[in-house]
This record gives sequence, structure tokens and C-alpha cells, in this order.
Amino acid sequence: MRITVLGATGSIGKSTFELLRQSGREFSVSAITAKSDVNGLVALVREFKAKLVVVADPERHRELRDALAGTGTKTASGSEGLLAAAEEPADAVMAGITGAAGLAPTLAAIQPGRRIVLANKECLVCAGDLFMRRVRQTGATLLPADSEHNAVFQALAAGPREAVERVTLTASGGPFRTFTREQLERVTPEEALRHPTWSMGSKITIDSATLMNKGLELIEAHHLFALPAKQLDVLVHPQSIVHALVTFRDGGVVAGLSVPDMQIPIAHCLGWPERLAWQAPKLDLAQIGSLSFEAPDPVRFPSLRLARAALEAGGATPTILNAANEVAVEAFLAGRIGFTGIPAIVERVLEKAAAERLGAPETVNAAAAVDHIARIRARDLLLEFAAKAS
Amino acid sequence: MRITVLGATGSIGKSTFELLRQSGREFSVSAITAKSDVNGLVALVREFKAKLVVVADPERHRELRDALAGTGTKTASGSEGLLAAAEEPADAVMAGITGAAGLAPTLAAIQPGRRIVLANKECLVCAGDLFMRRVRQTGATLLPADSEHNAVFQALAAGPREAVERVTLTASGGPFRTFTREQLERVTPEEALRHPTWSMGSKITIDSATLMNKGLELIEAHHLFALPAKQLDVLVHPQSIVHALVTFRDGGVVAGLSVPDMQIPIAHCLGWPERLAWQAPKLDLAQIGSLSFEAPDPVRFPSLRLARAALEAGGATPTILNAANEVAVEAFLAGRIGFTGIPAIVERVLEKAAAERLGAPETVNAAAAVDHIARIRARDLLLEFAAKAS
Repeated sequence: MRITVLGATGSIGKSTFELLRQSGREFSVSAITAKSDVNGLVALVREFKAKLVVVADPERHRELRDALAGTGTKTASGSEGLLAAAEEPADAVMAGITGAAGLAPTLAAIQPGRRIVLANKECLVCAGDLFMRRVRQTGATLLPADSEHNAVFQALAAGPREAVERVTLTASGGPFRTFTREQLERVTPEEALRHPTWSMGSKITIDSATLMNKGLELIEAHHLFALPAKQLDVLVHPQSIVHALVTFRDGGVVAGLSVPDMQIPIAHCLGWPERLAWQAPKLDLAQIGSLSFEAPDPVRFPSLRLARAALEAGGATPTILNAANEVAVEAFLAGRIGFTGIPAIVERVLEKAAAERLGAPETVNAAAAVDHIARIRARDLLLEFAAKAS
Repeated sequence: MRITVLGATGSIGKSTFELLRQSGREFSVSAITAKSDVNGLVALVREFKAKLVVVADPERHRELRDALAGTGTKTASGSEGLLAAAEEPADAVMAGITGAAGLAPTLAAIQPGRRIVLANKECLVCAGDLFMRRVRQTGATLLPADSEHNAVFQALAAGPREAVERVTLTASGGPFRTFTREQLERVTPEEALRHPTWSMGSKITIDSATLMNKGLELIEAHHLFALPAKQLDVLVHPQSIVHALVTFRDGGVVAGLSVPDMQIPIAHCLGWPERLAWQAPKLDLAQIGSLSFEAPDPVRFPSLRLARAALEAGGATPTILNAANEVAVEAFLAGRIGFTGIPAIVERVLEKAAAERLGAPETVNAAAAVDHIARIRARDLLLEFAAKAS
């Protein structure tokens, strides 16, 4: 297996190489990329070799080139370098560049016969139609690396697609699951960054606390599994053991479970259609004792409702939702707005966008333009909020 | 679909016809059989027609023949009649005759290209090697109708068989899950017949209370899924929502869930490889709230340990276990021994058998002979127990 890792020094990259080390699976590295971590890239080349190594930050290119001089490894940088990495011949591409920066290279990586392991949210949230069209056209295999969608993918094997009645993603409910509306208003960034079950970056941790993360996952599930909003559901499950459930029309329900560890779904994607052998953490339900489930509260956690509305509105609305949310989360982390201000900003931006009825972005550039405008509007609203507060 | 229902007036038969009614699935009835319920058979012929109708009790044959005179439906009776029903051309056979009586006709029903929906336990427990060999030789498709094995079957679709690390069947734990050893000694048949989650016959309800039912299911799972005892596990789960879990070597776990309703796995078997549309009861985890799990207690519930030992011993031991257990359960229901006497009888019979190391029965007659001898020994022990008690 020739493997390319876009975002090789981040969490998906680290997990990928660690799993390949442990499993003893035979592979060769085609291309690896990183935003700026030249040392990380160089260490990977020393261990695994690589045909092409790309640092996104052009300012770090010389450093990379010098470090790899004489190794026979090609180097490149910038967005063109990322595209070259995506296009380097490979059997599997781990798409682990997070954020909007992952959009263009991940799209370019979708090529006939390839396996694409998707860990980037924006590809589906901001350009889902475009992205899935390219997957269909190329006949590439798309495997979702995050635990919920990966669980859905596994569970779907149990029956024909047309017999799926409902797909349910679980949400931990975040650290404020039991907070009152008043308590939520006083939540600090420090409190919000302490996630009860998953260890993740700060943006996604805040999204987990607001439940926007689950809202974005609903949008992803819509694209990944070609299901309308009304067949998609969220269930709060604080232990994060059951990741998703697929309900078939005959009453049978098939669920994907595991210890909450991001390496497990990545291992599934790497091994598929086989299963990787590695030192996987074992699920022990007798020791866990009890799994609990509750419906999400749309009053205290409006983000889920906003995401669902964006999904139902379609067109550019999910792209706008995502951009507004990013700006609002940044503002919350910077102490500029309160926790409940996050969905408030998003809702206001969506209200303004509703009248425009922008269609789904047809290109990466169009998605970027929609994203850009939504961010400007969200920032304007931040000023407005600040003016009111003072 | 041409369908034959062995045991058409029992619970699997009733469920089968009710599901076919509700789903509007096109089918024709090949053969139906019942132990003695002539009225039930005649009603089914009036509604669904049938090529061949068999009443096992020869004394009821004239009544059946007279009732169906002029309808063009063939009738038969006795064990030869049951074999004729099994051999009547059909695409699917619902094997719903319970007990040892189901062994010969179910075995005869396994024919090339057929789907066999198995609801009879004895086929696998008492003659598993023989039975599975015939399934392999004919290339018939074997679908398990009980909820645990059906859940395993569904979950296994998520990965290649060689990547299965563990199959876990859940057990409700029965009505005495929290009883002390002393309380268990005083349990009455009436108490034991009140099962917390499933509504079933009295033999299987007692087996659920002792956990022998789960032990027999371990033996069935061994044959159905070609897994050794050490890869099979039992987890007590009082709500009976999660029926089974399959753990793959990469850390992923896929589980089958549903409302505890025996029609759901039967619907799966009828619809397979599609999914039947019917008024299936919906699983609502938010409403259920909590699912709990605990390891079974081998001290208070020795039957599970005995069954596992019988599975590991192999040969004729599972047949002996099953026969001894049937005799012991009958004696308990008749008030002749206490609840804890059931595993005590079984254990003693197994001890006596251990030295003989009988091989796995190669024919139905051989299985019947082993069964017969084990019953005699169990009955002898009952007399011994009674003599001691008086």
C-alpha cells in the first residue's frame, strides 16, 4: 500500500504512523505534508522514506529542502505543493489537514481507485455536494475517520442502504450537559476546554461543549450516507462508548462501539476491508457498568437546531453556519463573548443569509468566498454585541 | 418465495405468518407442520393455501385429512410426514419445531440453495457438528432466528471473519440475578416462570433463570460462527436491548440491538438479504435511559460454567448436558428438586460422562441414543437426590 498523509505531523498523521508501526502492515510513503513542522516531517522521512515532502508554509521550505538534501526526496511548499502531494501516486490518502486549508488538497486527492480516509470536517460541511460528486465520479472509496461516522459506516454493512430508516450519532453532551441556561452564560473558556471523554483540539472541544460539533457531524452524515435530515438523529450519551446506531426498517438496530480513542476508527480505515492487528484498547462493558442515553436539549443547546436548520436549508447555508461558528468560537476563546453568545452569533448570521438563498458552492473558490463573507458578517456582529455590552 | 414452516402453529410459525401478512411480501406456502393443532393448521391452509400439511401426532391425521378433503392439499403425519414436509420443494424453511423432535426434520430440510431459519436449539447443541457439516455440504444459508445469534450474524457483516476477536452474547440474568445463594435455594417454579424481559415457554424461561439458556447459546454460537469457546463470552444485561456484540481485532465493536421482541430477528431472517417492512416496535434509547452490564456470577449460576465446560470437552458432552438439563428442569417444575438442584443434577451427569469421552454423534439416531442414556442417568440421580432428601 502506497500511502499519502496530508497533515502528517498532526493527530491523524501521528495515529496513522503509529498504527502502521504496530501492525507491521507493509506500506510505502508517497507524500507527507505539514503546516510548518519541518522537524516532524524530517523525522518521518528518516523513519519511513517518502517520495514527496511538503511544508505548507513557504517560509519553511528552504529549511526542509536543506534538511533533506541528498536523500532523493522531493520537497515542495505552499498551496501548490499541497496539491502536488495530493496528486502524487498513492493507493490511500489520509486527509488529515484540518480547517478550510484542507479543502483544496483533499478534493485533489480524490482520484480513481483510491481510498480517501477523511478526517477533515470542512470538506463535507462547506463543500459536501462538490466533494461527494467527485467521489462518485472517480469511484474513489471514502472512509470516515471520526468515530461516529466510522461507526455508521461499519453498521451499514448489516443491511441494504434503502432499508435504513434512521442513523443516530451520539454526543457526549460535553462538560455542561447538566448546566442550566444561567450556568451556561457564565462558562469560561478554561471550563469549556475540559472535555469529559475525548482529548481534542480547542476548536472542536468548544464545538463539543455547544453541541455544534454534533450539528456539523449531522451535515457530514447527510453527505457521507446520502440521507436527508429527517433520517438523521442525535442522542446524548455521556460515556462516548456507543458512537452511532443504524436503525433498519425491520426493527433491527446495529451500533458501532469502542473505547473512546481516536486511533480505533483510524485503524479501521487503514485496515479496511481487512482489520488491522494492533494493541487496541479493549472495551469492557462489565467494568463500565452502565451506558446512559438522553435526548439533546434544544433550548440549552441551540447549536444542534441551527445546524439541522442549515442542513435543511441546504445551498450555501452549512458553509455559512460553519464560518460564523468558527468566528464565534474564536471570540469566545478570546474572552470577547460568552458561551451562549456562540450560537447567538451563528443564528444572527444565518438569519441574514436566509433571504439570499445562496446555492451550494460549485468550486473550492466559491466555498471560500461564501466562507469569507460569512466571517465578515460574524465579525461585524461581534462588534455590535460588544457595543451593546459596553 | 416458497416457504415451509416446520412448527407452523407455534411461536415461530405465528410470527412468520404475521410478518408475511404485515409486510405484503409475495410468497407461497410449500409445507406446514404442527405437533397436534389440527385447527391451527386448517386455518393456515384456508388463509395461505399449502401444498402439504403434516400433523406429527398420527392420531390426529384422520381429523386433518377430513377437514382438508377436497382442497387439493396433501396431508401426512408422523415422523415420516415431518420428513416429507422438510423435503417438499421450498426456497426457505422456518425450522420452528422445538426440542429433540425438531432434529431429524430440520436436518432433512437442509438442501442446496435453501434458506434455513433456525429456531430449534437442539440441532446445534445436540448434533452441531453433523448439522453444520450438512449446511456446508449443501451450501444452504443458515440464519439464526433467536435474538442473540441473529445480532451476531448482523454484526459480523462489518468485518472479515478472521478478524473477529470475540463474540459476546448478552443474558438478561433472569429474575434471580440479584438473589443470594440461599434465596436461590428457595425459589419456586412460579417465581422462576416470571421472566423480566422475554415472554417464552416454561422450559426456556427456567433455562434463562439458571443461565443454562445462555450456556446452550454459547454452544450454538460455537457451531454457527465456527468459533472456539475462548472467543465466546457472556455479559449480563438486564434490559435485553443489546443482544450481542462482535469485537474485531482493531478495537472496533459492532453490536445488534432492538426492543426485546422475538418477531424482530424472525423478520430479519425472512427479509434477508433485504429488510422486511412491517410495524416493527421502535427502539427509543433516550426513553430507556440506561443500559447496564455486569459479568455473570459463576458461583450463583453454575450452569454457564457447566455449558462452557461441555463445549470445551466437545464430543457428545453438549448432548449429555442438554438431556440432563431437560430432565432436571422438568423435575424442578414438578416440584421434585429445588432450583439449585438443576445445575447439581447436570454437573453429576457430566461427571459420570467425562470418563467415557463419547465422540460427537454422527447421526440423528446416535444423538438420540446419547440423549436417551443421559436422561436415564439424570432420572437415576433424581431418585438418589429424593432418597437423600427424605
